[in-house]
Amino acid sequence: MSQPVRVFVTGGTFDKEYDELAGRLFFRKTHLPEMLRLARCRLEAPVEKLMMIDSLDMNDADRERIVEACRGCAEARIVITHGTDTMVETARALLAAATGKTIVLTGAMVPYAFGSSDGLFNLGSALSFAQVLPPGVYLAMNGRYFPGDRVRKNREIGIFEETG
Amino acid sequence: MSQPVRVFVTGGTFDKEYDELAGRLFFRKTHLPEMLRLARCRLEAPVEKLMMIDSLDMNDADRERIVEACRGCAEARIVITHGTDTMVETARALLAAATGKTIVLTGAMVPYAFGSSDGLFNLGSALSFAQVLPPGVYLAMNGRYFPGDRVRKNREIGIFEETG
Amino acid sequence: MSQPVRVFVTGGTFDKEYDELAGRLFFRKTHLPEMLRLARCRLEAPVEKLMMIDSLDMNDADRERIVEACRGCAEARIVITHGTDTMVETARALLAAATGKTIVLTGAMVPYAFGSSDGLFNLGSALSFAQVLPPGVYLAMNGRYFPGDRVRKNREIGIFEETG
Amino acid sequence: MSQPVRVFVTGGTFDKEYDELAGRLFFRKTHLPEMLRLARCRLEAPVEKLMMIDSLDMNDADRERIVEACRGCAEARIVITHGTDTMVETARALLAAATGKTIVLTGAMVPYAFGSSDGLFNLGSALSFAQVLPPGVYLAMNGRYFPGDRVRKNREIGIFEETG
Repeated sequence: MSQPVRVFVTGGTFDKEYDELAGRLFFRKTHLPEMLRLARCRLEAPVEKLMMIDSLDMNDADRERIVEACRGCAEARIVITHGTDTMVETARALLAAATGKTIVLTGAMVPYAFGSSDGLFNLGSALSFAQVLPPGVYLAMNGRYFPGDRVRKNREIGIFEETG
Repeated sequence: MSQPVRVFVTGGTFDKEYDELAGRLFFRKTHLPEMLRLARCRLEAPVEKLMMIDSLDMNDADRERIVEACRGCAEARIVITHGTDTMVETARALLAAATGKTIVLTGAMVPYAFGSSDGLFNLGSALSFAQVLPPGVYLAMNGRYFPGDRVRKNREIGIFEETG
Repeated sequence: MSQPVRVFVTGGTFDKEYDELAGRLFFRKTHLPEMLRLARCRLEAPVEKLMMIDSLDMNDADRERIVEACRGCAEARIVITHGTDTMVETARALLAAATGKTIVLTGAMVPYAFGSSDGLFNLGSALSFAQVLPPGVYLAMNGRYFPGDRVRKNREIGIFEETG
Repeated sequence: MSQPVRVFVTGGTFDKEYDELAGRLFFRKTHLPEMLRLARCRLEAPVEKLMMIDSLDMNDADRERIVEACRGCAEARIVITHGTDTMVETARALLAAATGKTIVLTGAMVPYAFGSSDGLFNLGSALSFAQVLPPGVYLAMNGRYFPGDRVRKNREIGIFEETG
């Protein structure tokens, strides 16, 4: 009964890596294909990299590009990997665009490349919510999901909360 | 919008460990609490160990115990971790019991304690399906879900398939 | 000041993997090249697989083959990866052969492919002892080294001990 | 035949962690005890934290403290974990101090807390060199060792090289 889910990559903590020479975090390539392989994923889930940035650096043009990608793809169900800092803003932009599709944004608190990441769990969760939730925009993080218009990030404790 | 999900542990590959002295696989304790911690899980998901066995060793009395646990718990949404070899048989027993709840069975192809396990992905997936699927019995493995009465395990290639 | 060290692979816990279809441990390929890559090893350490077996299955002909490989290689310093169960017997065979080289046997309590292995530590240790110890046969496990003629495995607690 | 080795911790890449809230690297606690546990280390190797800093921030007073610690400890064999950027400077300070002990500095290119670190390998290597090298100051990285007065870090490619 599973339907294909398009995966759009935008960067975020998910895909950060450690630069051995410079001793700092950076982006190189997306880990999504490797994660789906490790997950032995049997769902049709084509991955497409839109950008590779920290979500604090995401601007209106980047969000417009994400909206267009969601509109233009063949699939009616979409997962977007995204930095958590401005995930809510992108959800709002997708809501305003009214694509009529089921779109689930997800991310990670710790980079996948590091040992103790929540990324694989969140990816499994987002791909599952995307298959069964009705059209709309959602955030899926750490086992929960939130409607895109009723969620905020509590930066002090680093988690998402439902708003009134 | 997330609702609590009860997690019942029965063993299976998920929880197998390596016995350093004997050089073979064995069961010791469940890794579910550690996995939920790593996932930074914010969903209310109380874990209860029912048994700790290879699913090839599961008998009718064990299945009856699983059915009773599902009937008796307060939650209407349940995830069961289970060996893949007889997961379908347990799904059939749960279907016959008609609990009226949403029950999702999941497992792993590789033990969580080993480096390259699909367990964390499957757990995130199962907890998500359990929150949004209507009452029924389902299997969730490797990104897909199957109705409990229309699935079989293809042992030659180690994956689940939907039946007619 | 570092000198090249030949690495001979014989199997053992080091290289055991998990067979997803059969649900048991097996040998497939050696992990030594991957381990040296992860270690960013800058020492010249050519790897050669002699056999890929559980050391409980090692017979006199296998040990003769190991002795011949040590005699025949160009390097004067050698590390042998080996199952721990009969590591002492192989050390005795190498001592009897009096190769005049520095030979260090090492192994692991937990397979490298699993998350919490001592393998990488033991490999770093063995390669280091092999560079500086005088000619002789040694076991290197878990931070210590033992002369090959004064060591036994305490099977009850799974560690090596020096004998009188 | 193994002798106790004192381990002094000074920080460096070895012990860097990922700060989930701030999204950057930081120091919290040393991973050395956890690493020795994973290594199932049977060598007497008491760990003492001297400081927890990036070696680029290490000043003369810090180096003096390291020298005093080496002088003052009971053990004649010492391993120091250290950032790679100024490891050579600290080696020079220890050489000048002429402690008469065997001192091995080591570090990591990737934090131990991340999945693909060389830290465990380097720790096994340093503890082994420390047991068998004659009194002096050495660097041990990535399978090789260098006398403290004949080594430099090639920052462009991130490795240590022996000098004339």
